[in-house]
Amino acid sequence: MTDSEVQDRIALLRGLRAIREFRPEPVPQAVVDDLLEVARWTGSARNYQPWEIVLIRDREMLRALAEVGPRARHLAGAPLGMMLIMSGNPDRFEHETFDEGRLSERLLLTAAAHGVGGCIGWFDSDEAADAKALLDIPQERLVRTALSFGYPDVEALRARQKPPQARKPLAGMVYQEKYS
Amino acid sequence: MTDSEVQDRIALLRGLRAIREFRPEPVPQAVVDDLLEVARWTGSARNYQPWEIVLIRDREMLRALAEVGPRARHLAGAPLGMMLIMSGNPDRFEHETFDEGRLSERLLLTAAAHGVGGCIGWFDSDEAADAKALLDIPQERLVRTALSFGYPDVEALRARQKPPQARKPLAGMVYQEKYS
Repeated sequence: MTDSEVQDRIALLRGLRAIREFRPEPVPQAVVDDLLEVARWTGSARNYQPWEIVLIRDREMLRALAEVGPRARHLAGAPLGMMLIMSGNPDRFEHETFDEGRLSERLLLTAAAHGVGGCIGWFDSDEAADAKALLDIPQERLVRTALSFGYPDVEALRARQKPPQARKPLAGMVYQEKYS
Repeated sequence: MTDSEVQDRIALLRGLRAIREFRPEPVPQAVVDDLLEVARWTGSARNYQPWEIVLIRDREMLRALAEVGPRARHLAGAPLGMMLIMSGNPDRFEHETFDEGRLSERLLLTAAAHGVGGCIGWFDSDEAADAKALLDIPQERLVRTALSFGYPDVEALRARQKPPQARKPLAGMVYQEKYS
């Protein structure tokens, strides 16, 4: 790999931000193919791969999901939604939750690698029960996260004029050898 | 971005694999700087950034941690270990676990962007209590994950002759519009 490839990779990894406002164009199939292929190869505890995915493009369904999950309301305006379905093994709740975070991050980065924006939406257990009913997902599965994908609506983002989200400084976050 | 940049990004995201066997050379400071900067910018629920990091290079400490955490035993041979410390808010256990998965994935990808390998080690709560004592971390913090980093020991990897880990096919993992 070249220096400029390394720099490009780090810029991608460092620069990922949540995008909630999308243009209406569909996400190209080549991007969807990469999303699914990267999902398939994402690592998981003991290589259980405890996930399944429902791809949703139907506008009415995306609106209905946004309705039952207020913290996933960006689905309503997204050309593509992705519901993550974890296997729901109660003995592996902690592992599945951690692995779901890994999978979500890899998917958002894959979209960003193509210039496509995305955002994580979250369903509480009551809200998830409604989402499962809408999508014919058995209630024993663990559903909690839906991802929105689409090309960023730069004008809408500008109009909101939200300041960029700050981050804590490294001092106070990083320790050498011991915590102190 | 160019087509070749996109291809390079996707290859990085698709190709990440756990590396547990390391050469002894230290991880360069420029790579550590990128790891910490990407960690700092990783997204989290409500932007809480509920994490702190202890960097560990001391060989005896790495061995002691590998001793108390059998599923983190790759720390013993790693030139760099990173203990993730989550804030441990019991009301946010699920979010912190998910966010810890996001952070871990972003860190492993950042290392891989530089050709540095890495692996996730896991501590059960009993094992984590011992790890916290070793590192002077208050017991009320949530500690569960340590990452190992180093240049891959290609010869050791070959000698193990482990077949590459398989993944499930996309058919049966991906559904369109509804789960069925």
